Amino acid sequence: MNLTVRGIGRLLTMTDEPQRDTALVVRGGRVTWTGAASELPADAPAEELDVQGACVVPGFVDAHTHLVFAGLRREEFVARLAGQPYDGGGIRVTVDATRAASDEQLLDLAAARAATAMSHGTTTMEVKTGYGLTPEDELRLLDITARLAGRTPLRLEATYLGAHVVPAGRDRDEYVDEVVATIPEAAARGARWCDVFCDQGVFTVAEARHVLTTARDHGLGLRLHAEEIAWTGAAALAAELGCASADHLEHVRADDARAMAASGVVGVLLPTVTLSLRSAAWGHASVLRDAGVELALATDCNPGTSWCESMPYAIQLGCLAMGLSVDEAFRAATLGSAHSLRRDDVGHLGVGAWGDLAVLDAEHEADVVAHLGGRPVRTTVIGGVVQQRL
Amino acid sequence: MNLTVRGIGRLLTMTDEPQRDTALVVRGGRVTWTGAASELPADAPAEELDVQGACVVPGFVDAHTHLVFAGLRREEFVARLAGQPYDGGGIRVTVDATRAASDEQLLDLAAARAATAMSHGTTTMEVKTGYGLTPEDELRLLDITARLAGRTPLRLEATYLGAHVVPAGRDRDEYVDEVVATIPEAAARGARWCDVFCDQGVFTVAEARHVLTTARDHGLGLRLHAEEIAWTGAAALAAELGCASADHLEHVRADDARAMAASGVVGVLLPTVTLSLRSAAWGHASVLRDAGVELALATDCNPGTSWCESMPYAIQLGCLAMGLSVDEAFRAATLGSAHSLRRDDVGHLGVGAWGDLAVLDAEHEADVVAHLGGRPVRTTVIGGVVQQRL
Repeated sequence: MNLTVRGIGRLLTMTDEPQRDTALVVRGGRVTWTGAASELPADAPAEELDVQGACVVPGFVDAHTHLVFAGLRREEFVARLAGQPYDGGGIRVTVDATRAASDEQLLDLAAARAATAMSHGTTTMEVKTGYGLTPEDELRLLDITARLAGRTPLRLEATYLGAHVVPAGRDRDEYVDEVVATIPEAAARGARWCDVFCDQGVFTVAEARHVLTTARDHGLGLRLHAEEIAWTGAAALAAELGCASADHLEHVRADDARAMAASGVVGVLLPTVTLSLRSAAWGHASVLRDAGVELALATDCNPGTSWCESMPYAIQLGCLAMGLSVDEAFRAATLGSAHSLRRDDVGHLGVGAWGDLAVLDAEHEADVVAHLGGRPVRTTVIGGVVQQRL
Repeated sequence: MNLTVRGIGRLLTMTDEPQRDTALVVRGGRVTWTGAASELPADAPAEELDVQGACVVPGFVDAHTHLVFAGLRREEFVARLAGQPYDGGGIRVTVDATRAASDEQLLDLAAARAATAMSHGTTTMEVKTGYGLTPEDELRLLDITARLAGRTPLRLEATYLGAHVVPAGRDRDEYVDEVVATIPEAAARGARWCDVFCDQGVFTVAEARHVLTTARDHGLGLRLHAEEIAWTGAAALAAELGCASADHLEHVRADDARAMAASGVVGVLLPTVTLSLRSAAWGHASVLRDAGVELALATDCNPGTSWCESMPYAIQLGCLAMGLSVDEAFRAATLGSAHSLRRDDVGHLGVGAWGDLAVLDAEHEADVVAHLGGRPVRTTVIGGVVQQRL
C-alpha cells in the first residue's frame, strides 16, 4: 500500500506533461507525490521499486471485456479466415459452453485471463455478462464476476449485458421483456452498468432504448455496442440517452459522432476486433476525433471476435491500423477509458489517484508501439502493491 | 542431440497431414521417426520432452531479417504516425548508429534479438548486412554474423546487402561499383546470399541486375527487395535472374507474379512491415497466390520499418490482415521460408530433417493466430536440444 517508485526514466501521469528522471510515492494505495528524483521527500516509504530508467504509465483501463466465458471458437475463426462473414451468431456457441461449465471452471478461466491482462499492464477492467442469456445464467455470471474481484487485484466494473443476442429458439419480444425484468436483480448482484448489443441482426435501436432507459431508472450507468456490423443509429441513441460510452463504432456517421461529443459519450475503440473480423474498417477513429469525441481503447476480450487480454496490443493497432498518434493511444488506454467508466480515480497518476501503474519494458512509450511482439510491460503495480517483479 | 518428444496433441510435419496423439524421435539432431504415441519404438531416446497435449510445428524459418544493428528509430516512428511518408531514408540513421557501435555491442544486441526470436519459435534465420555501407563496415557485419552463429543455436544464413541504400554524400555509380567489387570478399567472409533494395528512390532495376549477376558469378544465391514502396519491375527481374526469393511485393503486378511462379521465385511476405508503415497494402498475398507463387513469411526484423523478432506475430498478420488461411500461413512460415533459402533440411519435420520444432502454447495452431497478444510458444527445440523449458 506504501511504495516509492524510483528510477523512472520517463513518467506519463496524464495530468502533466511527460517528465524525465522522476520518482513517485504511493501511500495508502494512492499517489501522494510525483516529482524530480532529486527532490524525493526524505520520509518516502521504505518499500521501493527501482524501475531502472523505464517509462512508467498509468495502469491500463480496459473498458470493454467479456472476460467470463468457457470454450473456444476455433471452427468459426478458421472459417472466417476462409471468407465467411461475421453475423454475431457465434455468441451462441460460447453461451452453450459457458452454461455447461461449473462456477469454479468459469472462475479459474476468468482469473487466468485477468492475470494475463495484468501482466500486460491492465489494472482496471470492465467485465460484461452476456454468455448466460437466461435470468439465472446471467445473474450467475454477475456472481462469478463478484467472486473474481476477490481473486484478482484488478479493479473490476461489472456490466449486465443480457441483451447480447436473442437466444436460439426464443421469441425476441419475450426475451427483451425478460432482460428488462432482470435489471433490478442484476443491479442487486453488483452490476454497475447495463449494455446492449445494438446492431444489424442483433437488437434494434427501439429495443436498446427500452432496456437502457429501464436500467437508468434502476441506477445503472449506460454503455452501448454501436455501429459495429452496420450503421443502425445506435450511436445517436447513445447520445440521446447520455450513455457513458458507445463502443466499436466502425460504421459511425459524422453527425452521430458530433451528437456523441455534445453529450459526453466516450467512444471506445476496439481495434483487435477490427483485425480479428478482417473488416478493414479502420477509418472511424478519425471520424470520432474530428467530431471531438473523447476516445478510449479496450480489448473486447472474448472468444469469438477478439481473443485478446493485452492492452498494449490494442494500443499498437490503435496507432498502426487506426491512425492514432502514440500520445492519443496511451491517453485513450488510460484516461479516456477511465472517463468511459466515469471514474476519476484511475487512468492517471495525479495526486489522489490510485497508485496503479505499468512499468513498460522500454524507456519510451513509443517503443512499446513500435516493437511488435515484444514484451510490453515489465511490472504492474496496483494500489502501490507490486504484482510481479521481472 | 537425441530426444523423444512425447504427448504431442497435434503434429504438423508439413510433409504429411496433421496427426493427433503422436510422438517424435530425434537422433543425432535429425528427425528419425514420427508416429502414433502408442507405437513409439522401444529404443527411443531416454531424454524426453513431454509437451502435454500441445501442438508441435516445425521451427519457424525467418527468411528476411536485418538483425545486426544499433540504435532506435523512435523519432521517425512517431513522425510516421503523425502522417509523414516512408522513403527509406531512415536507414542512414541506423547506419550511423551501427558504425558507431563496437563489435561487442552489435554482437550483444543481435544475440538478444536472436534469443527473443527463438523464444517465439524461430530456429533458422536469414541475416542481412546493409547498415555498414562501406566495404569495411559491410564486411564487419558479416564477421559479426559469423560470430553470432557461435552465440546462438539458431541456424543462420548470411546475406550481403551492400546495396541497401546509397550512402549520404556518395556518387551512386561509384557506390554501386564499390558494392560489386566487394562481392568476392563478402562471399569469402561467409555470405551465402546477395540482396539488393530495388525500389523507387533506392536502387534501379539496372543497378540491381548488375549487382546480382556479379554475385551469381561468385557463387552467391540471389534475393531481392522488390515492389515495396512502388512498382519498379523488380519482381520481373527476380524472375529473369531466377532469384530464390523476391521480398515485400506490396505493389507486385499479376503478370510479374506469374513470371515469378514460372521461374520458382518464392514470394516472401512481410506483413509487419505493411502494418508498421501504415501502407494499407494488404492485397498482394492474393495476387501472388492466384499466380501460383510459393509463399513465405518473415519478420524483416529491423529498427525502422519492422521492429519485430516474432514469427507468430507475422503469422497473425499474414492471416488477419493479408488474408492467408491458417494452413497457408504456417506453411509459409516453415516450408515456404525454407524453400526461399533453398533448404530442404529445415521447415518441416519429415524423417531426415533437423529436429527443429516449436511447441505452441496451444492445442491447435489456429489458436496461436486467434489469441492476440498471447504467449505463442512454450518451448523451442533446435537439433533435438530443448532451448527453454517453460
